[in-house]
Amino acid sequence: MSDTVKFVLPEERIPRSWYNLLADLPSPPPPVLHPGTMQPIGPGDLAPLFPMSLILQEVSTEREIEIPEPVRDVYRQWRPSPLFRARRLEKALDTPARIYYKYEGVSPAGSHKPNTAVAQAFYNKEAGITRITTETGAGQWGSSLAFAGALFGISIDVYMVRVSYDQKPYRRALMEAYGARCVPSPSMETNSGRAILAKRHDHPGSLGIAISEAVEMAAQRDDTKYALGSVLNHVLLHQTVIGQEAMAQFEMANDYPDVILGCTGGGSNFAGIAFPFIGAQLRGGRKHKIVAVEPSACPSLTRGPYAYDFGDTAKLTPLTKMNTLGSSFTPPGFHAGGLRYHGMAPLVSFVKELGLIDAVAYHQNACFAAGVEFARAEGIVPAPEANHAVKGAIDEALKCKQEGVSRAILFNLSGHGHFDMQAYIDYHAGKLLDQDYDEAELAMALAGLPSVPA
Amino acid sequence: MSDTVKFVLPEERIPRSWYNLLADLPSPPPPVLHPGTMQPIGPGDLAPLFPMSLILQEVSTEREIEIPEPVRDVYRQWRPSPLFRARRLEKALDTPARIYYKYEGVSPAGSHKPNTAVAQAFYNKEAGITRITTETGAGQWGSSLAFAGALFGISIDVYMVRVSYDQKPYRRALMEAYGARCVPSPSMETNSGRAILAKRHDHPGSLGIAISEAVEMAAQRDDTKYALGSVLNHVLLHQTVIGQEAMAQFEMANDYPDVILGCTGGGSNFAGIAFPFIGAQLRGGRKHKIVAVEPSACPSLTRGPYAYDFGDTAKLTPLTKMNTLGSSFTPPGFHAGGLRYHGMAPLVSFVKELGLIDAVAYHQNACFAAGVEFARAEGIVPAPEANHAVKGAIDEALKCKQEGVSRAILFNLSGHGHFDMQAYIDYHAGKLLDQDYDEAELAMALAGLPSVPA
Repeated sequence: MSDTVKFVLPEERIPRSWYNLLADLPSPPPPVLHPGTMQPIGPGDLAPLFPMSLILQEVSTEREIEIPEPVRDVYRQWRPSPLFRARRLEKALDTPARIYYKYEGVSPAGSHKPNTAVAQAFYNKEAGITRITTETGAGQWGSSLAFAGALFGISIDVYMVRVSYDQKPYRRALMEAYGARCVPSPSMETNSGRAILAKRHDHPGSLGIAISEAVEMAAQRDDTKYALGSVLNHVLLHQTVIGQEAMAQFEMANDYPDVILGCTGGGSNFAGIAFPFIGAQLRGGRKHKIVAVEPSACPSLTRGPYAYDFGDTAKLTPLTKMNTLGSSFTPPGFHAGGLRYHGMAPLVSFVKELGLIDAVAYHQNACFAAGVEFARAEGIVPAPEANHAVKGAIDEALKCKQEGVSRAILFNLSGHGHFDMQAYIDYHAGKLLDQDYDEAELAMALAGLPSVPA
Repeated sequence: MSDTVKFVLPEERIPRSWYNLLADLPSPPPPVLHPGTMQPIGPGDLAPLFPMSLILQEVSTEREIEIPEPVRDVYRQWRPSPLFRARRLEKALDTPARIYYKYEGVSPAGSHKPNTAVAQAFYNKEAGITRITTETGAGQWGSSLAFAGALFGISIDVYMVRVSYDQKPYRRALMEAYGARCVPSPSMETNSGRAILAKRHDHPGSLGIAISEAVEMAAQRDDTKYALGSVLNHVLLHQTVIGQEAMAQFEMANDYPDVILGCTGGGSNFAGIAFPFIGAQLRGGRKHKIVAVEPSACPSLTRGPYAYDFGDTAKLTPLTKMNTLGSSFTPPGFHAGGLRYHGMAPLVSFVKELGLIDAVAYHQNACFAAGVEFARAEGIVPAPEANHAVKGAIDEALKCKQEGVSRAILFNLSGHGHFDMQAYIDYHAGKLLDQDYDEAELAMALAGLPSVPA
């Protein structure tokens, strides 16, 4: 058999609709609550932040939501993304497992994020919006929205966590090459930013703070909306093109994944690959083992309670029930900036509650070791976030070897590491710490969870 | 019409042979001379440096040279590469021109270089070679050979121009992620390096020096050979998969390129896209305007005489007739590190002598402006080298607008700029200088050209 096994779908096989898992769940997830009234919110409550078409997607229970042709047209630039059989990695591991990876790093911004960035830019454009604010951590989301904004002629303001802004000038340069404005957060542009800087002028920032700033700016102006790169139902929805394509590619391969893995920060790339398979299973199809892989330093799924919490630090967002470490939780330093969020997507948390998925946490050195092994076998250097999925997949493959069984393992290689090479330099120099979160920090953050009437 | 127009060939359309322009030229190019005897060399003279299969390709006049199946198998990971119609750029320019680009940045190392790196690694492996030495400037070639070495289990030693080694730690990190050893050049490992460091301990290095070091190391050991990333006939040959695919894709598009452009440093990506079209023209096909685009700071094709010269600084290599600025020529600083070589591929120089191609030179700020315009329209941030081709293509498109005619313009987008974002930061900050080469420097370098008996 050939060492390079690539499953390529023709352009017309780009999915025509997004798959909505809500249609197939045995019960609806808990409602989203208004931060003032603690009552379930209605679509109107979100109108200052999002165009109505996205709000309707957020609450829709239709199984299939049509992808507008202008969005599919942009998808065409890099979709359908390839599914690879990792034959060289299998040989290097000497495993009977059949390892497959769906590669989302082929997008112009280098990750899965444009799948939703393009959709969100389109719906905002349609609603007459001329500016979108957002936050970014490592910069994958910010650069993806910057790309989408350039294509649709929308100005993009990105509030970038200050420590990343300083440490990742090249991600910032990418956003600026696309024409976006990139602001280190906390900034003096917002009340939330000014309040935090008044307490600590050199605050390193956090995703929660950057969200507060972006939300505050969007709420002030009619021509400006806000966009989030993960967590929300409509964001996860847009990512389901990944899993739908993978299903078609497994048919080409005449195989079926026994194990499916994705890394989880906010949950969107994981949901993108897993939800279509979970849906098929719920409709009576074959069962799979589905594993969310998260960092030990920020383990929302494996250590966070399933509870109502805010999405941001300033407590401006609605409350959602999710696995959370508390909205004030600050993880220790580690290199997968996209996995540093305190909460998990409500829908991913809910399927975990339902027992449909497992979760596992790893320290970063083990993930980078897996990433380097993968790079030398397969030629692609993964993003630090994606290394978590690689590590999970390698462990599953080694389990197959131990048990002497061949299972098909599918993981989402959500992005490449071209903008994260400093992390590889630090890894090779032995400078990466395998820090756990601080137990006292977690206890304090959890003590701050809002109390919600039953 | 759709804004995203992508021409994708199925996997079985990866070319089965490389195209050899030598078969169609009206006369053979001048012979390569031995640096000691000044007489034409034979295959045996090159044997210390290259495996015999590559030497035979270097001198072959067969039109088609079969691509070994293991090489095609690796190509399959990213080939056939897409051909895009740049509809959004056409709209932004408001031009009647039809602009197409072949995108080679889809390879794992992010440029066209793996097309030859994989082939060279394969032939070396077949010859029992366990180590390959090479040089790299900006790092595109070094990382491509590192990738190929990882796949074929060959150790790779890369002599990297010291100024790039210091300024581009992320390219170096990519090579090291693939398992290559990266040495700043001039180094203390070789006689050539030590001689230069003895004169100037902080010498910034040059491609010519790095070639001397890599050649010297390879010549010393039986298990070690040398690999070059451009310039030589066999390297250009391997790149012809680009143009062959583009021809097939233009058939799909039911169009034909009136103008074909590529950037030129050593000449390999330009040859890759242009030679198959030149060959078809020589065999009686349609005529095209074919343009090599080079940097004003290192203008070998537009300012260098067509003369015999050495390929390296220490004068260890054979002499070839080419457009050269003199092997001691050092260009002023500019960001397209891959275009800093003093000479042009002998075969590219020869087709220019024959009047089959044109050449044009641009300063770097104009090229970066073109690159940013391209990125905002098409979503891909080009490598600084490729920005030269973008600039050339945009100028051709604006000429169409001026003349009110629609021509089909094809350019090779040879690589992405993910590892070159510092150059974009400097460009946006207005820090890039449009330096011309130093006339006295050029005069001195040309005065040092070897005298070759007629």
